[in-house]
Formats: sequence, C-alpha cells, structure tokens
Amino acid sequence: MENFIFGKNNVIELLKKNDRNISKIILMKGLKPDNKLEEIISIAKTRGIIFQFIPKEKFTQFKEYAHQGVIAYVSPVKYTEFDCFLKKDKEYKKVIITDGVEDPHNLGSIIRTAVCAGFDAVIFPSRRNATINATVEKSSQGAVNHIDLIMVNSLSSIVDKLKDNNFWIIATDINAKDNYYDINYCNMNFAIIMGSEEHGISSTILKKADFRIKIPIMTEFDSLNVANAASIVIYETVKQTIQKSGNGV
Amino acid sequence: MENFIFGKNNVIELLKKNDRNISKIILMKGLKPDNKLEEIISIAKTRGIIFQFIPKEKFTQFKEYAHQGVIAYVSPVKYTEFDCFLKKDKEYKKVIITDGVEDPHNLGSIIRTAVCAGFDAVIFPSRRNATINATVEKSSQGAVNHIDLIMVNSLSSIVDKLKDNNFWIIATDINAKDNYYDINYCNMNFAIIMGSEEHGISSTILKKADFRIKIPIMTEFDSLNVANAASIVIYETVKQTIQKSGNGV
Repeated sequence: MENFIFGKNNVIELLKKNDRNISKIILMKGLKPDNKLEEIISIAKTRGIIFQFIPKEKFTQFKEYAHQGVIAYVSPVKYTEFDCFLKKDKEYKKVIITDGVEDPHNLGSIIRTAVCAGFDAVIFPSRRNATINATVEKSSQGAVNHIDLIMVNSLSSIVDKLKDNNFWIIATDINAKDNYYDINYCNMNFAIIMGSEEHGISSTILKKADFRIKIPIMTEFDSLNVANAASIVIYETVKQTIQKSGNGV
Repeated sequence: MENFIFGKNNVIELLKKNDRNISKIILMKGLKPDNKLEEIISIAKTRGIIFQFIPKEKFTQFKEYAHQGVIAYVSPVKYTEFDCFLKKDKEYKKVIITDGVEDPHNLGSIIRTAVCAGFDAVIFPSRRNATINATVEKSSQGAVNHIDLIMVNSLSSIVDKLKDNNFWIIATDINAKDNYYDINYCNMNFAIIMGSEEHGISSTILKKADFRIKIPIMTEFDSLNVANAASIVIYETVKQTIQKSGNGV
C-alpha cells in the first residue's frame, strides 16, 4: 500500500508539504463536516487537486487502515510541471500524450518504450487515464524515473500550449488516411497522441491535431494493444532520426 | 482457469469465429440488457449453444476476471500441427517464434499484433514459455482464434525444419550489428524469433539464425518490453510489404 495516505491529519500534512504528487483525494459520503475536513477540501480546491465523495462501501477494501473516511492517492514518482518542461533547453522535443489509457500496465509499457526511444516526456490527463501508481511503475520497469511525467487537468489546453510552442500534434486515429510512416518526424518538436483502446482520442483533442495517422491493419481483426501501437509509432520516429543523421547506433 | 472466456467482447469474438467447442455460456442474472448481450444470446440460439442465467453469487469464483457477467465454457484453443502449417498453400509465410516468453500477457499481446499484421503463425515451445491459457486469450483480445498457434517440443528442430522449407530465420538479439529495419523482409518466408526478456534467445537457437537484428536504444535505459519489441519488428515487415506493393491500404 505504497500509494495511499490514510486519515485526516496525514492527508492535511501531505497537502501542506506539497512535495508529493496527489492524483486525487477520496472522501466518504456522509462524513460529518469538521474543521479538518474543511481544511482538506479548501487546500485541495486551491491546488486544483481532484476530490470525490465516494459511498461507504468503496472503502471496504481499505478497512485495515485507519482512514477516517479520507484517503489520498499519491504517486510514487515526482511529476514535472508542464511549464518547467517547456523551458528546458533542447533542440527538438519528443512527447507522447495518452488520452484515456486507463490500463496501468499499458501506461507503464508506453513510458518504457518512450524512454528507450529517447523521448522527453509523457503527458497524461488526471482523469480518465491511469496515473502513476505502483503497477505503472512496475510495468515501466523503472522507466518512470528516466523521463518527464506530466499530469495535467486539461489536455485540451496543454495541446494548445504545445502548438503555441512550435510542437506539431500528431494524433493516432483509426480513420486517418495517412499511415504512421508517411509523416516526416525529423527536425521538429512533436507530440504523438494515443487514445483509449475503446474510444480512441476524444473528439476535442482530435480536432486540434496537425496530422492524423493510422497503423495499417492487414486482416479483419482490428485490435492492436495501445502500448504496442505506441511502440510502433515511436520507433518509426527513432528510425527516421537515425537514418537522417546517418548514425547506425 | 484454462477453459473459460470472460467478457462480452471476447465471447462475441468466440461465437463469431465458430471454430471452438463452446459447452455453455453463463450470464449473470439481472444483467442489464444491451446490444452485446442480445448479440450473444442471438448467436447462441442460432448455433444451439446452451446459455444459462446464473445468480450473481456463482460468479464469485471468477471475481479476479473482468467477466462483465458473461462467461463461456470452452475447450482449449486448437493448436495447429507444424506439418499442417507447412503444407498450407501460400506464397510467403510470416511467422513469429517466442523462445522463453513466460508472461502470458506478453504472449497474448504478441499474438494480437501478429494477427493485425497478417502473420500466419505463432510458434512457441511447450516448456519455458507461456502456453495458451485464459490470460493469454484475454490479452490477445480473441486474436488466438485468428492465427495458427503451434506448440512444439523442440524449438531447435522446428527451426531446422523451417530452414529446410525455405524460411529465413531472423533472431532479435541485443548484440546484433544490424538494426531491425536494415533487413529486407519482402518476397520471402521468414520467422522472427523473440527471446525471453531476461535471457534473450537461447544460444542453440541463436546460432541457427540467418540474420540477427536489434532495436536501437537511444538512452542508457535498455529495457523494451518483449511484446512492444515484437510489435516494432513485426510492423517494419508490414510497412516494407505495403511500400513494395505500392498499396497504401
């Protein structure tokens, strides 16, 4: 249970110290209001941390812990602020964005490939997407410590900011005309967006993309795992970079 | 838990493929009707497959599985005999061999990509490698029903037979000189071998390879997931085939 902080005082302490990434706070529905609870909600609001009132039954899994109806979900790794990432000095930055990748194994696996490929960051929304927990860390084989991980509240506004900062936005989309290898990924900042396995990329994000690419499917069976799909696209960019530089690695 | 298929999509996939023995389908009593559920019941009726509505309590034993209240009881996946596979009439055959891929999620995921890429078979040894169980089936999202699965006792002798039958043997090896995209995969039968994440391909098999290829790693962090690695190589072959045929798909 590395990734939970239980109880009012502990959660207040955590919120005040501001040194770990809190993905969300859950509060038991019907909890009697008191000063501490109000403080938790107040700080959470100020810091833009999600808090949710959850039915009592959902706390059963935590019954061995003195949670007092208050549990914070914390990340074992440190997230990078988006603005800090932007300020980093590098000629071309390469980013993977996951929009709705809920399976922590897949997120971990994508991070792992991104690190091997020398990517600079993985960006993901704080809702409807896995966040960094112990499973992600394990699936990444420790790769979470080798890349900037950026959790954002609004993916849409981050995509706008990326565009303002000379990033090309490349969306993977099953209905795209271009295949993933039809794009030239060299000599530019880019962000590749992977959508959820079930629904793909959300329509608001998809509209903002500069390019849409697909992975061609050679049979009737149209169902690539999202981490495998990400790896295929990521490594096309690696290949192009190596071939352009004439560096055989 | 070798003989159950869990979840609506997997059961629909199974029913549509119609090549395995389904002894019955159990559905959770009180399950909310939806299109998928209706489809399952409709196909089951047409094919004369028994389906039963069962109280929720009976599903407790399957609580570790994402069954969505729908479980099919099936006979184990049908393996293909290697000799039957060889006799199949096709101009060029493409094969993935796993040598020591013990994680069933990875094996399932490799099978899934192989099917999407239009490969013909996945060959794996009966020892020191995952074999097809419920986890593999689920990770493959039903892909196990769309490709020849060949389980063999001696990988070494199968590799010899493949060579005798005009297959080129391509081994992924971290110490290889060539990158995976340096090989021309067009107009030939080939088998790509993926080794275990920990030890790679066993030395006896590696010695028999016609080509050794590696996936270039751009950082100090040298640890691609084997299913992702397989996907990267598999899709390089797809890309070359499409580009050669001038078919944009």
